[in-house]
Amino acid sequence: MKIIVIGASGTIGKAVSSHLAVRHEIVSVGANSGDVRADIRDIAQVRALFGQVGKVDAVVVAAGAVHFGPLAELGPEQFQVGIASKLMGQVNVAQVAAGYLNDGGSITLISGIVGEQPIRFGASASMINSAVEGFVRGAAIELPRGLRINAISPTVLEESLDTYGPYFYGFEAAPASRVALAYSRSVEGAQTGQVYRVW
Amino acid sequence: MKIIVIGASGTIGKAVSSHLAVRHEIVSVGANSGDVRADIRDIAQVRALFGQVGKVDAVVVAAGAVHFGPLAELGPEQFQVGIASKLMGQVNVAQVAAGYLNDGGSITLISGIVGEQPIRFGASASMINSAVEGFVRGAAIELPRGLRINAISPTVLEESLDTYGPYFYGFEAAPASRVALAYSRSVEGAQTGQVYRVW
Ligand SMILES: NC(=O)c1ccc[n+]([C@@H]2O[C@H](COP(=O)([O-])OP(=O)(O)OC[C@H]3O[C@@H](n4cnc5c(N)ncnc54)[C@H](OP(=O)(O)O)[C@@H]3O)[C@@H](O)[C@H]2O)c1
Ligand SMILES: NC(=O)c1ccc[n+]([C@@H]2O[C@H](COP(=O)([O-])OP(=O)(O)OC[C@H]3O[C@@H](n4cnc5c(N)ncnc54)[C@H](OP(=O)(O)O)[C@@H]3O)[C@@H](O)[C@H]2O)c1
Repeated sequence: MKIIVIGASGTIGKAVSSHLAVRHEIVSVGANSGDVRADIRDIAQVRALFGQVGKVDAVVVAAGAVHFGPLAELGPEQFQVGIASKLMGQVNVAQVAAGYLNDGGSITLISGIVGEQPIRFGASASMINSAVEGFVRGAAIELPRGLRINAISPTVLEESLDTYGPYFYGFEAAPASRVALAYSRSVEGAQTGQVYRVW
Repeated sequence: MKIIVIGASGTIGKAVSSHLAVRHEIVSVGANSGDVRADIRDIAQVRALFGQVGKVDAVVVAAGAVHFGPLAELGPEQFQVGIASKLMGQVNVAQVAAGYLNDGGSITLISGIVGEQPIRFGASASMINSAVEGFVRGAAIELPRGLRINAISPTVLEESLDTYGPYFYGFEAAPASRVALAYSRSVEGAQTGQVYRVW
């Protein structure tokens, strides 16, 4: 398969890319890195990306920012970070990808445990992760030509504990290699509308 | 209790208002109707609303638009309708309300069955409803002073079958009076971070 990996240079994206590269051709993408550059917040850049790469068999996303901060300090601007990036960035990718995927192809998006299991400072992440999962459920039943869409919901990664550990005391962490397995299951399996939890 | 009902003139809002009015003082709000007018999409109008009404014991929302349409015809503009109105409109209300609620007061938001049970033309609604529920889970654990927040997730209303019926063939409808009970449970109960399904 030919697979676009958006966020390929990241903690999750690196593990996903190397896992999938064993059997597949990878096109790596980032806003500032990769074989092709595209900022997913801008649908015009997403359209240009697919226009350049052409037909593919799978698109996976391991990118998207959200704002973390105390609930009382979250205003429209803070929520907008996640809406523009992790939510609409991924929706932009899914909506444009649907026109370029070969029959039976798949879209795999990223959410996260905080959508279901809230943490302090995580209200925007809970909102955005749940939104991504809702979009996946809604889009799955309307995609044509056997196209599929799923989300991966990881717990905090072992590789990210230096950065995010203090938000996640008491949570079991998972290695990026386990998250890569979930992406493989979405891309190389046959289900749609699923949220694969890695926790 | 003194309770602000946003969307009080609507199908759900009317039933909620008359149910709660038996025991409580209601301040009705709409963008174009009610005791006080405020468009929840604009946080400045939400701030003005609370500035005018002052301290309250509960705030309930039964308002918020989303775009329904075929997945292939949903672009950023269509998703933005629900993001601005049903999602960020309600988040605006919750965030401003937290500064005006008496200790132990509650915020009750509206989502809908489509967040969990998708329908054709409903990908944006699935996304937005799930986002509202994620926000409620995230906000609940950070609200101070015993403040509570819940969401109501109704199935299609019997009173709305003329309008929405064709989207919901095969779904069991519920009367607005049952949805009003769920609001009462959120306002007059003691739980937080819950999604009360009316289905
Ligand atoms: N790490 C965790 O513990 C964890 C747990 C659960 C969920 N998640 C979620 O997983 C996703 C990836 O996390 P990560 O820790 O792997 O991130 P990361 O290490 O910071 O990597 C992010 C990747 O995404 C790319 N990227 C960022 N913004 C982009 C944009 N607007 N357009 C295109 N590419 C963009 C980056 O490349 P460029 O710099 O070139 O743009 C990079 O390749 C995030 O949504 C995060 O919330 C992470
Ligand atoms: N009806 C159903 O079957 C059903 C099922 C599940 C979920 N829901 C959800 O429940 C909510 C209410 O539905 P409904 O059928 O009761 O709606 P509705 O009959 O159309 O009433 C909407 C109410 O909200 C107010 N409103 C609309 N936009 C507003 C804004 N931007 N700012 C402030 N107030 C606003 C309206 O007053 P003004 O005209 O004065 O603004 C009106 O009072 C919606 O979010 C809907 O998705 C409905």
